[in-house]
Amino acid sequence: MDISDWRKKIDDLDEQIVRLISQRAEAAQAIGDLKRASRLPVYEPGREQQVFDHVRAANPGPLAEGEMLHVYERIIDVMRSLQRREE
Amino acid sequence: MDISDWRKKIDDLDEQIVRLISQRAEAAQAIGDLKRASRLPVYEPGREQQVFDHVRAANPGPLAEGEMLHVYERIIDVMRSLQRREE
Repeated sequence: MDISDWRKKIDDLDEQIVRLISQRAEAAQAIGDLKRASRLPVYEPGREQQVFDHVRAANPGPLAEGEMLHVYERIIDVMRSLQRREE
Repeated sequence: MDISDWRKKIDDLDEQIVRLISQRAEAAQAIGDLKRASRLPVYEPGREQQVFDHVRAANPGPLAEGEMLHVYERIIDVMRSLQRREE
């Protein structure tokens, strides 16, 4: 495979990644709505820790653990601001 | 669906997202190797702009354009540091 083949593969992967992150955002919105309906706190640090532990365990490489967690910190930040937007 | 059902869905999505980001990292490594072999520069700002344009066009919501790009800035950062690690 040459550089342009790999780039086509990356573009295809990016479409899938964007779709899955969007589905994750919809699920986070649904949880935010359920929490508000039951007057539960939206921010739960224990659950965030579970998510990071799960991501760490699922990471097959080649990214180092810290690199994958670095990406996930940003994903979690964005999900949190999405949930806040609905309040 | 209750909160715990949505969390199971999120855990499943996270496994898929981690897998796809890892495949993307492997593709970025392959491109880095090809560029080094042909003595091409590893950093290409024009290609990064293409990636951002593609992500923007692929984003179906509910995340705002800026939020999805914010996640992708982090993904690109991490890919760049992975490619540098190999030099």
